[in-house]
Amino acid sequence: MIFSTLDIVGTIAFAISGSLVAIKKKFDFFGVLIIALATSLGGGTLRDLLIGNTPVTWLTNLQTFYIVIASSFIAMFFRRRLSVFSTSLFLFDTIGIGIFTIVGIEKALTVDLDPVICILLGTITACFGGVTRDILCNEIPVIFRKEIYATACIVGGIMFFILKFLSVNSDLIYIATAATIILIRILAVKYKWAYPQIKE
Amino acid sequence: MIFSTLDIVGTIAFAISGSLVAIKKKFDFFGVLIIALATSLGGGTLRDLLIGNTPVTWLTNLQTFYIVIASSFIAMFFRRRLSVFSTSLFLFDTIGIGIFTIVGIEKALTVDLDPVICILLGTITACFGGVTRDILCNEIPVIFRKEIYATACIVGGIMFFILKFLSVNSDLIYIATAATIILIRILAVKYKWAYPQIKE
Amino acid sequence: MIFSTLDIVGTIAFAISGSLVAIKKKFDFFGVLIIALATSLGGGTLRDLLIGNTPVTWLTNLQTFYIVIASSFIAMFFRRRLSVFSTSLFLFDTIGIGIFTIVGIEKALTVDLDPVICILLGTITACFGGVTRDILCNEIPVIFRKEIYATACIVGGIMFFILKFLSVNSDLIYIATAATIILIRILAVKYKWAYPQIKE
Repeated sequence: MIFSTLDIVGTIAFAISGSLVAIKKKFDFFGVLIIALATSLGGGTLRDLLIGNTPVTWLTNLQTFYIVIASSFIAMFFRRRLSVFSTSLFLFDTIGIGIFTIVGIEKALTVDLDPVICILLGTITACFGGVTRDILCNEIPVIFRKEIYATACIVGGIMFFILKFLSVNSDLIYIATAATIILIRILAVKYKWAYPQIKE
Repeated sequence: MIFSTLDIVGTIAFAISGSLVAIKKKFDFFGVLIIALATSLGGGTLRDLLIGNTPVTWLTNLQTFYIVIASSFIAMFFRRRLSVFSTSLFLFDTIGIGIFTIVGIEKALTVDLDPVICILLGTITACFGGVTRDILCNEIPVIFRKEIYATACIVGGIMFFILKFLSVNSDLIYIATAATIILIRILAVKYKWAYPQIKE
Repeated sequence: MIFSTLDIVGTIAFAISGSLVAIKKKFDFFGVLIIALATSLGGGTLRDLLIGNTPVTWLTNLQTFYIVIASSFIAMFFRRRLSVFSTSLFLFDTIGIGIFTIVGIEKALTVDLDPVICILLGTITACFGGVTRDILCNEIPVIFRKEIYATACIVGGIMFFILKFLSVNSDLIYIATAATIILIRILAVKYKWAYPQIKE
């Protein structure tokens, strides 16, 4: 129950984040919809392909498709109220990765993969939609920007399995994992946490 | 019968369109072949992966592979006769999307997907080869250019299901669908039909 | 036996080649790891997806994942000893494609594909990791650069099937195939072998 709600909230968050980037890039109406779809569905699609879960989820569940389209229309309509653009984008993108990390880990667990691989697939699910969005919009992919990004998902994933090992209730695991990821991401941007560059 | 003929014609059209873009970009002989393959096979490959139809079609049907290679050689040989470059490119690309939308819808129907998803997969089959071609050649992807493009495939797809619902003969459905897509595309370029840009 | 050793050596070679390009591009610590993973796993992942071998190999074999991470750390640590950068990169990339062509062909043979398609899949396995590396690092993909590259894999693949047809011992086939590819690649760079450009 809480799981399918999470999936929907993450989908909406990424659809809005994709729409905002496309609007900023002055794409037309149809281009905004395509970027919203790519951002929301990209991570889950790559995960489903890698684990062999085909037809991929959104092909057999029209609800997801309609949620993305509706969220994108809402973002286009209220684009001026989402006034401080980069703050709105950061907010929705951060909620998206926090939630989709959990979704990715849970899907990976259904095919009995090793926890290390589950965390990797959770991170891919969370990050690949945003990477696709940025490549299509000709921005530097989020994952290669200065502040810590994918690492937040990895730390959240480790938290997930520690709590699971301690037999914590799964709703609590979800909340703690998403909160960890979102908090790390906020602190990383606020305090400019970054990895050292490898000097040649 | 008419269906497999359509598939071959669409493959030839996209192989030529890919070769023309690569020739214009001054790629070498081998680069032209790669772009021809990516343009012809890209859309069908993504569709097959998404619906789980693996090994993907062209791996088990060598005929398609040879048709692409032969079409690409012909395009290289007759490149000067295909004199007004952008007109030839537009022509072959338009035939390609008109036909591949139908191919994509029919393949999606074989796995019993919802008509909305079938139309989406038809559009992906038609458009993704050209998108791959443009990304590899460092052009703005067709789907993000000003004139209406993917929308032609969507309208054609809707036409397909209306006629199917009316129990029209399938050969007639194919002809009407392809003609609709090609006509919309021609009119869109001629009269500069475009979606409104979403102002920030 | 020799086959799984080859797979490991190829993985290490590509992990180092990816790390070197990322270090040169001044990526941070985490970015170097991502590029190493994409370079080592990209080709095999695309091959596994195309033939429907899912979950893809590295998801169920953690060893590969740890080898890539370890190789990338070693490359970062010894980056100054790998002093003549472009020579080291060329060396590791060439070993990688020589070996991964064989790995790709053998995997394609397990699903009974035609030799022509097996050679194509061997070439994709060998080249796609480097192409992904170059796209993510914003370099011109190796496959589109001047000197002969993918052709070396194709010639090696033809050699593979000629020797197989002659019932040569499989260890000998592996050595001869990899040696052919590596030799062609070295000669191509040394003597600037290139295909003719197709003039518009």
